[in-house]
Amino acid sequence: MSGQRSPTRSRSIWREADGWSVGIFDQRRMPWAIETLRLTSAEEAADAIRDMATRGAPLIGATAAYGLALALRAGADDAALARAVDLLAATRPTAVNLRWALERVRARVAPLPPAARAAAAYAEADAICEEDEAVNRAIGAHGLPLIRALAAAKAPGEPVNILTHCNPGWLATVAWGTATAPLYLAQDEGLALHVWVDETRPRNQGALTALELADHGVPVSFIADNAGGLYMQRGLVDMVIVGTDRVAANGDVCNKIGTYLKALAARAHGVPFYVALPASTYDPATPSGDGIPIEERSGDELRFVSGPDEAGVMRKVAITAAPARNPAFDVTPAALVTGYITEKGVCAGPEALAAAFGG
Amino acid sequence: MSGQRSPTRSRSIWREADGWSVGIFDQRRMPWAIETLRLTSAEEAADAIRDMATRGAPLIGATAAYGLALALRAGADDAALARAVDLLAATRPTAVNLRWALERVRARVAPLPPAARAAAAYAEADAICEEDEAVNRAIGAHGLPLIRALAAAKAPGEPVNILTHCNPGWLATVAWGTATAPLYLAQDEGLALHVWVDETRPRNQGALTALELADHGVPVSFIADNAGGLYMQRGLVDMVIVGTDRVAANGDVCNKIGTYLKALAARAHGVPFYVALPASTYDPATPSGDGIPIEERSGDELRFVSGPDEAGVMRKVAITAAPARNPAFDVTPAALVTGYITEKGVCAGPEALAAAFGG
Repeated sequence: MSGQRSPTRSRSIWREADGWSVGIFDQRRMPWAIETLRLTSAEEAADAIRDMATRGAPLIGATAAYGLALALRAGADDAALARAVDLLAATRPTAVNLRWALERVRARVAPLPPAARAAAAYAEADAICEEDEAVNRAIGAHGLPLIRALAAAKAPGEPVNILTHCNPGWLATVAWGTATAPLYLAQDEGLALHVWVDETRPRNQGALTALELADHGVPVSFIADNAGGLYMQRGLVDMVIVGTDRVAANGDVCNKIGTYLKALAARAHGVPFYVALPASTYDPATPSGDGIPIEERSGDELRFVSGPDEAGVMRKVAITAAPARNPAFDVTPAALVTGYITEKGVCAGPEALAAAFGG
Repeated sequence: MSGQRSPTRSRSIWREADGWSVGIFDQRRMPWAIETLRLTSAEEAADAIRDMATRGAPLIGATAAYGLALALRAGADDAALARAVDLLAATRPTAVNLRWALERVRARVAPLPPAARAAAAYAEADAICEEDEAVNRAIGAHGLPLIRALAAAKAPGEPVNILTHCNPGWLATVAWGTATAPLYLAQDEGLALHVWVDETRPRNQGALTALELADHGVPVSFIADNAGGLYMQRGLVDMVIVGTDRVAANGDVCNKIGTYLKALAARAHGVPFYVALPASTYDPATPSGDGIPIEERSGDELRFVSGPDEAGVMRKVAITAAPARNPAFDVTPAALVTGYITEKGVCAGPEALAAAFGG
């Protein structure tokens, strides 16, 4: 990958050397092509979010924050500010971080004279990124003892088997990842790990998670989304950790489609099911999961798969010509969640979440 | 498709015009290319089963039966008979129909002089196919009232939403299919249906199911395996019907990987979960699902996807370079099964199954 990526400190978004344009990975090409995009306008930032060149709730928030800074660089009066916020907020409906980040930057810049707004927006976007990194590091530190406890119950050399879904890694955040942060810290500490990585159809974000984890030395097995239930039946899953796009006031968890099926299986087999999230993903204004809009994306995401052919040429192939439906998220009821791993500690339920995050 | 396929009566295996070679569809190329294979030896039949050119528990049994006939045509002494049975039995470990069909043909031909064995084997294979067709028609007739009852509770024009997994259709049997037989009869009767067709990674057999159903006029939506839980949450699944590769004496159901996750979700939402099976798939000799061997296939089935590119050229593209694990089946405990739709009627539990099938 690029200079923004190293085994110990990987960043998914950065200011380019010019000081104002914004670099991201084009995740549509990963894991095969490690290419970056240079964003120079709010429109480009919005396109990158909408087309999923960049994805993951925290990273969407950071990208939107920089997108607002880019907009204000081009024009910073109140009308331009409002237009840019609307443009960026409309890109994806489910993740709450997007609106959180936009509101945070807007609140920071709105009282300022237009001439001072762009610089303040950049500073706020930088701060969002720095905080995201620190927050995820803290999520990792709070999740690590859960893995240590599972490792302590294992025979020597026997790994802790952890299942995850989608990409809750550093590619989906600014750094560390949410659900992956405890894994990286456990790996650094020398605990024996093995991670079942769900493919995560239709966008196959598991390929990104597998790339990330393997790159950091964590043993992984890439599996079909269908397989996790069998491995739980066989006692081969010690813990599930997932990220989330929004947690409602009652603790309901909106995350990538298919998360709910794993939560049901985990409950059936007594496997602890943890959700890793920063404060920015907690949405006390939404009472329950019923109130979270579920984005429905094009069925073509399911009907076509892209990747390199035998000769290494990127191709897009069709799986079916049938009409396809493609809901992007589902809701896991709070009752199925063992705990919420946050930067403030592990919260057992919605009351603890509200106390931690002041909901 | 070929002359073996029509909207009202489709057959997946047949004797060719020469009277002795055996025709099947090459399901590895479907739904894009409708090509047939001509099997002329037991080795070719074994390859077709092992490589999944032909698949589905009942059709595997029928193919193996003809494979034995082909072997006996080339050499019919006791040693040749034993070798051919061993060769064909070793192709796939999970489906019980395979061994059932081989034992049935062997029992028929073993008492005969070698010169009479091939003709008797063909006759027995023909009978297995004819019975499979009649059996599946009967499964359809017994399943139909379940769909009628759901339709009766709907507002006019509102469809009964049925979810299925893998391909339990006529392409997986000799004709009609198991889980699809009630759907075809319901469609013929004019009931309003809509079928959620699980993609069924890693081999995407949902594309075959979607092709079959759409071809017979049944409205379908192809969905990711991850999506069924959400649709159940939303009340958009009235019934799940799946096929099976083996049902144990206690009623545990071995079926395509991922079936178990749908059964858990169905239970969580009060959605009836039915398993369609003929007697040949019932295995009273296996006490429970724990005793069913779960085939683990190559991870490459998950890591690569084949299909036509934009120009219609068949390509194989990679999804991940990570190590992959690929268990082909899982076990749904009998407690999650609402009923077993058989050619003898709908059985509520393992006792009724044993009574129906003399287990």
